[in-house]
Amino acid sequence: MLSTCLRRESTHLRRYSSLAKPITLGFRRTMSSTPVPGEQFRPASRVASQKQDVWSIINEAATNSPTQPIINMGQGFFGYNPPKFITDAAKDALDKVDCNQYSPTKGRPRLKKAIAKSYSPLFGREINPETEVTITTGANEGMLSAFMGFIEPGDEVVIFEPFFDQYISNIEMAGGVIRYVPLQPPKNGGTEVSSAGDWTVDMAAVEKALSSKSKMIVLNTPHNPVGKIFSKAELQAIGDLCVKHNLIILSDEVYDRLPFTPFTRIATLSPAIAARTLTVGSAGKNFYCTGWRVGWLIGPANLIHYVAAAHTRICFSSVSPLQEAAAVGFEKAESLGFWEQSRKEMMGKVERFCAVFDELGLPYSKPEGGYFVLANFARVNLPQDYVFPSQVADRPRDYKLAWFLIMELGLAAIPPTEFYTKENMWMAEDWLRFAVCKEDDVLEGAKERLRGLRKYMS
Amino acid sequence: MLSTCLRRESTHLRRYSSLAKPITLGFRRTMSSTPVPGEQFRPASRVASQKQDVWSIINEAATNSPTQPIINMGQGFFGYNPPKFITDAAKDALDKVDCNQYSPTKGRPRLKKAIAKSYSPLFGREINPETEVTITTGANEGMLSAFMGFIEPGDEVVIFEPFFDQYISNIEMAGGVIRYVPLQPPKNGGTEVSSAGDWTVDMAAVEKALSSKSKMIVLNTPHNPVGKIFSKAELQAIGDLCVKHNLIILSDEVYDRLPFTPFTRIATLSPAIAARTLTVGSAGKNFYCTGWRVGWLIGPANLIHYVAAAHTRICFSSVSPLQEAAAVGFEKAESLGFWEQSRKEMMGKVERFCAVFDELGLPYSKPEGGYFVLANFARVNLPQDYVFPSQVADRPRDYKLAWFLIMELGLAAIPPTEFYTKENMWMAEDWLRFAVCKEDDVLEGAKERLRGLRKYMS
Repeated sequence: MLSTCLRRESTHLRRYSSLAKPITLGFRRTMSSTPVPGEQFRPASRVASQKQDVWSIINEAATNSPTQPIINMGQGFFGYNPPKFITDAAKDALDKVDCNQYSPTKGRPRLKKAIAKSYSPLFGREINPETEVTITTGANEGMLSAFMGFIEPGDEVVIFEPFFDQYISNIEMAGGVIRYVPLQPPKNGGTEVSSAGDWTVDMAAVEKALSSKSKMIVLNTPHNPVGKIFSKAELQAIGDLCVKHNLIILSDEVYDRLPFTPFTRIATLSPAIAARTLTVGSAGKNFYCTGWRVGWLIGPANLIHYVAAAHTRICFSSVSPLQEAAAVGFEKAESLGFWEQSRKEMMGKVERFCAVFDELGLPYSKPEGGYFVLANFARVNLPQDYVFPSQVADRPRDYKLAWFLIMELGLAAIPPTEFYTKENMWMAEDWLRFAVCKEDDVLEGAKERLRGLRKYMS
Repeated sequence: MLSTCLRRESTHLRRYSSLAKPITLGFRRTMSSTPVPGEQFRPASRVASQKQDVWSIINEAATNSPTQPIINMGQGFFGYNPPKFITDAAKDALDKVDCNQYSPTKGRPRLKKAIAKSYSPLFGREINPETEVTITTGANEGMLSAFMGFIEPGDEVVIFEPFFDQYISNIEMAGGVIRYVPLQPPKNGGTEVSSAGDWTVDMAAVEKALSSKSKMIVLNTPHNPVGKIFSKAELQAIGDLCVKHNLIILSDEVYDRLPFTPFTRIATLSPAIAARTLTVGSAGKNFYCTGWRVGWLIGPANLIHYVAAAHTRICFSSVSPLQEAAAVGFEKAESLGFWEQSRKEMMGKVERFCAVFDELGLPYSKPEGGYFVLANFARVNLPQDYVFPSQVADRPRDYKLAWFLIMELGLAAIPPTEFYTKENMWMAEDWLRFAVCKEDDVLEGAKERLRGLRKYMS
């Protein structure tokens, strides 16, 4: 077989090399009949999965919905621009030579300083900008850097379900083994409006997930997709356990500027907890620019050092002009009242949107922070003869709900079972996640479309 | 030992929990005396090396040089801004909502289209923007994505020495094993001006480096730091070998718009070679903005698919507004004559700078492309009683030359033995690498400082 390939190829080669100006001549037609099959290059197992992910299923469905334009409350990107003082800062940076060239791999000094200054009061201690902050290419690559910095093949990492889906591939890329602990959904979540705080941590399950191989635990507060803010008591219990078992805590706090109820940072609970905690932040989430890819980690120098070392090996450095703009963002946000305005605005969006569920009598989980709302559609009866395509028919009910909303109402939301292991998917099969970080008129449009559900409700 | 730590920590915890408002209270002083030693968190072996890298040695030396400001021809960043039509495009993008939010993980459609359009004539075939181009967070993360997409632990990758240092950690992060093949330096490079083309490929050595575990070969043309453009004959020989042994070719062509002699892209040599070639490009290098972190790979769909899959898992997506600006860059560059102007300008800078070596009678290797010049300092006698610090004294002569130039002349260059395995370092120990992508007055200043070498020459 291989020799046949080689023989046939050499014919191409001969034909090709007889051309006068080979490099400017196309061989598209020749290529389409090339005998070299694509499959000959086996991909690495870490990328070989052919399972379609939630984003592409939902996006494809949205593109094909008969109701156009679709209202997209699926992916968590903002429907509006960053504030002008930040885009102006980015434009200024584009005029400066050094702001367009490589930044130091640990980040631009001005941004590290601005972050240390902004977070020191929130952490209750002076953060050293040079040793205790490192800039990454978004929070995502920041978390990958933390895993790459500390996880060896076989090391175990505890994460809660539902989880942000990138955690999984990021941990596995480092060779880590994941131990899952499901958050317990509110008992009456299918019949009554509940609080995101009613999704609770079973500490016995956390302890049971630990072994001598445990190296790290991943927290996410405010939580995506649940909207839960972990209580101080919960964090204290988790932190104590991590001290006892000598675990690193990776606390994903990218929605930290959008708390609607009291927000505790686990790194503030005790010196012993702080000494093992890496806190993750995101300019994209803080300043409405998810496409900027500027994130950071804050933590003790001995942990930050290796996160930065991994980041160097992954991306070398992060985007310079937008780091500079994020620095200006931090420098000005407090005095301009931006944080408080941002928080109130998002709280208003949550209330505005959730009103439609009250109106329809559909239960939802009131977020304590962030910009996602989980609503429960147990009361919605999908028509029994409705035909779902295979990529949806084979999945839990929330996929069918999402498909139905897209196709029949023109509204996209995310099925949260994607953020669960198979074993625990049942916990989320009646819920859908809506991103409310959209213009108010978009939210009103979405509400109007949701009212179309009435005829499918018992 | 561990039990002692835990005991001491619990004292802190008790003291801490007795405070009325623990989360707003600093514990900096407590932390500095915290008994939790940093070393308890063992870093992953992939980042554990404590060896100081060339960049930090040179930057530290530059900061401490008695001659300030130092003239920095070390790192390859531009000393001037991208052209205005590109920074203007970035500013426009910052005003558009979708240009500040997540881009598709494979990149913005406009940029993929612009790249396909610009490169189709150069590749001699129609490139499909949707399946044959993927955008990455700089060329660096693009190459990491290629390794992560195809290299499994134990797979072998062939690279040439000298190499771009990030290749090593990127390949090793995927679990790859590196086989090195040194480029053969010009025979009389220590005594005569030579061409970068005189650094030659020993094809027998390449063949010898291959085994049944070989999966990929990495090329870099125009080459950093040598400035060599691989000849068509060399590429054909390498390509044929890759077809014979069924290897993927990863061709790092980030300096592709700066060729001073005829430039062949290996992907154009035959359909069988094209079917296995991933070509890497960089907006940072093309448009003078190394801090933008926009790169791409072009190749057959079956390879690009898995590069993109790895990129998704590493960075999720790349910086949106600067992708949009790069798209405009490609759309306008040709008609504005930018590529030709850019090429001529850089060729002028090489000539302008090298004149000082002609003047001093120091041999150099004339680059065939890119923006690095290797000069040979065998004729420079370092004072016998000169005291070098330990991090330099233990390294090959080029480190001492670099240190001496920084401290005595106020000029920074890079010692290229950093880009060699220990075994082959001798090949480069008399050379230094200078980045000429700097303003002309900076180059003139550097020349003036180099004239100070006269008194150290025999």
